Amino acid sequence: MSKIDAALAAAVGAEREEGPPLLRAAMQHAVLGGGARVRPRLCLAVAEACGVQQWRLAFGAALAIELMHCASLVHDDLPCFDDADERRGKPSVHRSFGEPLAVLTGDALIVTAFRILGEYAAESPGRLSTLMSILARASGTPHGIVAGQAWESEPSVDLQAYHRAKTAALFVAATTAGAAAAGADPAPWEMLGCRLGEAYQVADDLRDALGEAVDLGKPVGRDAGLDRPSAAGALGARGALARFRELVSETLQAVPEGPGATQLQALIVLEAQRLVPPKLARLAA
Amino acid sequence: MSKIDAALAAAVGAEREEGPPLLRAAMQHAVLGGGARVRPRLCLAVAEACGVQQWRLAFGAALAIELMHCASLVHDDLPCFDDADERRGKPSVHRSFGEPLAVLTGDALIVTAFRILGEYAAESPGRLSTLMSILARASGTPHGIVAGQAWESEPSVDLQAYHRAKTAALFVAATTAGAAAAGADPAPWEMLGCRLGEAYQVADDLRDALGEAVDLGKPVGRDAGLDRPSAAGALGARGALARFRELVSETLQAVPEGPGATQLQALIVLEAQRLVPPKLARLAA
Repeated sequence: MSKIDAALAAAVGAEREEGPPLLRAAMQHAVLGGGARVRPRLCLAVAEACGVQQWRLAFGAALAIELMHCASLVHDDLPCFDDADERRGKPSVHRSFGEPLAVLTGDALIVTAFRILGEYAAESPGRLSTLMSILARASGTPHGIVAGQAWESEPSVDLQAYHRAKTAALFVAATTAGAAAAGADPAPWEMLGCRLGEAYQVADDLRDALGEAVDLGKPVGRDAGLDRPSAAGALGARGALARFRELVSETLQAVPEGPGATQLQALIVLEAQRLVPPKLARLAA
Repeated sequence: MSKIDAALAAAVGAEREEGPPLLRAAMQHAVLGGGARVRPRLCLAVAEACGVQQWRLAFGAALAIELMHCASLVHDDLPCFDDADERRGKPSVHRSFGEPLAVLTGDALIVTAFRILGEYAAESPGRLSTLMSILARASGTPHGIVAGQAWESEPSVDLQAYHRAKTAALFVAATTAGAAAAGADPAPWEMLGCRLGEAYQVADDLRDALGEAVDLGKPVGRDAGLDRPSAAGALGARGALARFRELVSETLQAVPEGPGATQLQALIVLEAQRLVPPKLARLAA
């Protein structure tokens, strides 16, 4: 198990026997045993590129962002939103534990995200307020993932604002929190998170549209079924693939210069291949 | 409008025109125009009794606790829990805005609670990690309000653990955060929050059981209808009234000695009268 996974397991109480047992089991179901951990890896890679000394602080921020991501997946899957049966190749939380516990699991994970950030920051309080602000801005309203999901309840949606809030926000949190944990100015790192988030969203739309051929571990064709804004829907598969490649190129250019730039670019290239494997690219072309 | 209400209005974006408009309206519906603000007033009273210098920090903690309380009310009212039509004399959030926005409103308010705490603590970061820990412990799992609600999904419930997590936790957060914001040891203030939370719960059960005669601004008789653990159900109205008076007396004794003790005790006596007015006490006797 990776260091990130081990710390996430500790965060959701895998080692403790306290509190309501079903809630604990549901939180573990939501967080453990799956997930590419893209956001925390990105956060740590940026922290490293910025020459971080306070590793524990960066690690806490990385974990907090991943926990917030997991919380959003649990709530997005609820019957009143996507009504998804599967997630990461397993039954969704509400299918396994019922709707009440799924609502509470998301709530508890949001709280846990901030709790972990505070705990890991106990020895470097000077940067905690900034990191809280980054995490809160990416999660809440008006521009975070909760706001992104809420755009689906509005009579009209701006596709770019919607995707930026729903997906890019946590990628921006990952890059800027990595920089802030290292004591660097977060501002130059925003564009990287933003472009990467957009690329991720376009790849996700593409996989959703063409996904019968690949194993996503979650239902496919949902965007079209839910009549939800999707790049693949708007651009067609070939257009979405072209847009994805354009975004990857812009992402590589958005990496600020510095000693860790090359390593970070290599990570992005690998991640792009994981997101859109050659097989999928051939289907879309 | 009180200073607390004005700051809450600012926290839920009453002054900004950004983000999804319906989500903003739902958050304002959930937080503004009602609520006795018991928890934030308690937090500030304890901070004052401890001779607080960093008022802004105490105020941020008080607001965060009230926002967390509002978040829990929105989610507790959801169809999968209490399915309540009314709250504070108005339609519940999901009745006014639909279930998706009610879920997101609760999520956004949890995030806002931590965001506000971080913002108000920006100039006194040394105490922020402790305050985050107090807020998170009272809110999440294993012993916070989310865990309290989750006990309702367990096959068997310990009445005391359930009430302690569901109601007392945020009162304990109020007293201990008030002390911590003042730089005092929070530990001696736990018992006060705990007893006050218990008293509040017993009074709420009593009002729920006998509430047809009083104006609660929310549906009455719900505990019995939902077959939910309730002191009034277990003890009868007369027993619950006796227990309430006992708890008020214990609460007064639980106020740690110090220059602000008398003022705090006076506030508790007034609050007890608000919770169980003479008319209700006569009905129960």
